[in-house]
Amino acid sequence: SSGSVVLVGAGPGDPGLLTLRALRALNEADVILHDRLVGAGVLELARRDAERIEVGKQAGQHHTTQDGIHALLLQHARAGRRVVRLKGGDPFVFGRGGEELEFLRAHAIPYEVVPGITAAVACAAYAGVPLTHRDHAQSVRFVTAHCQSSRDTLDWAALAQERQTLAVYMGVAELGVLQARLLEHGRAASTPFALIENGSRPEQRVVTGTLGNLAERALVHAVRSPALLILGEVAALASTLGWFGAPP
Amino acid sequence: SSGSVVLVGAGPGDPGLLTLRALRALNEADVILHDRLVGAGVLELARRDAERIEVGKQAGQHHTTQDGIHALLLQHARAGRRVVRLKGGDPFVFGRGGEELEFLRAHAIPYEVVPGITAAVACAAYAGVPLTHRDHAQSVRFVTAHCQSSRDTLDWAALAQERQTLAVYMGVAELGVLQARLLEHGRAASTPFALIENGSRPEQRVVTGTLGNLAERALVHAVRSPALLILGEVAALASTLGWFGAPP
Repeated sequence: SSGSVVLVGAGPGDPGLLTLRALRALNEADVILHDRLVGAGVLELARRDAERIEVGKQAGQHHTTQDGIHALLLQHARAGRRVVRLKGGDPFVFGRGGEELEFLRAHAIPYEVVPGITAAVACAAYAGVPLTHRDHAQSVRFVTAHCQSSRDTLDWAALAQERQTLAVYMGVAELGVLQARLLEHGRAASTPFALIENGSRPEQRVVTGTLGNLAERALVHAVRSPALLILGEVAALASTLGWFGAPP
Repeated sequence: SSGSVVLVGAGPGDPGLLTLRALRALNEADVILHDRLVGAGVLELARRDAERIEVGKQAGQHHTTQDGIHALLLQHARAGRRVVRLKGGDPFVFGRGGEELEFLRAHAIPYEVVPGITAAVACAAYAGVPLTHRDHAQSVRFVTAHCQSSRDTLDWAALAQERQTLAVYMGVAELGVLQARLLEHGRAASTPFALIENGSRPEQRVVTGTLGNLAERALVHAVRSPALLILGEVAALASTLGWFGAPP
């Protein structure tokens, strides 16, 4: 019998943000290859006797390479198993899901995709920050700035434009560079931000300020990963519309 | 006893893309104020005796204004009811959720927000189009082009930049204008697109092509709303990675 892979977005960590389809896939799985960041509460919802394999990455520790993940997917699917490849957030937003599907297609392994709530959408909801707003933002852009090469290829002039919201998936260490480059390219120092640590989790914290004091505020409040940055006029609404966890 | 409002994203229509939290809110609701576009399958999952009120908009027909929606939210919450405000997709991505929360906050009505799978994320998953990709797109931008004023305020030069994915929430009628403006501002006519009609629903269709023939291809295939446009190098992957519904 032929195995298959379901590429599943687990959302930001709160098991309540799993979709019904994701839950069903977890209930039917023989093997679950999951990223390290997928919450324990999510994994508890899976079939009790499913094999769980952590393939996540962590700075400075042993981790499974992307090729290693591909090999595991192939091995388990060829053994006739129902494999769930479980990723934090959504698999197609900074999740390398496309690369995994290209590999599966090339090896004729059948697959499906279950979208998930990506961090920007979850953090916005739980911080009370609408990503778009009739008066303030006609578009929203999801950007990552995790590594040097991604920062070098970004079009900073376009990112610095007004009337758009930026949702930045990044490490806290990169905030200083981001602040400097956006200011250099003309985004106003008065542009509000909301920096959301552990978004949607009970320990969520929201730090607010303006682009001019972004890195300083993050340092003062000792913000740590996972954190998501929302930059733009809408971020100012966190102070009035926030409803979850401690006030900003 | 004091009522409350839960602002819930229903996702793109497939009930399987509801989150567990959304399902719980629907089970506990006394009143559900829902947009017209929320699928019947989603509403069937709600508490049987909940009052359902359609407040959606449809061109040329009677509809509830935004002020009318606010008034209904206030009336039912003040009557002590558990109100669910159910929106298609995610309430904070082109959903005017921010405006509704500002109104509720101003009237001291307690609320929560449950994020949903927004159309771009759902359509990408079901069409096999990763929104970001290591080799092709370092960022993704969600844009709407539904009305003249939104088109006039868009920064077309920034939208025309390479190496980013555009996910455009729009009516099919606006495709010609979008095509012309992006070409004028220098986006290559060879840029691939995937136009997804009824994304994630059994009747999903995906029409592919390049920016140079976008409006023509939509016309030839008689694409109708709801449709979502994904423009960028990643859209070419629909042909190889597509897995749901008829091949493009």
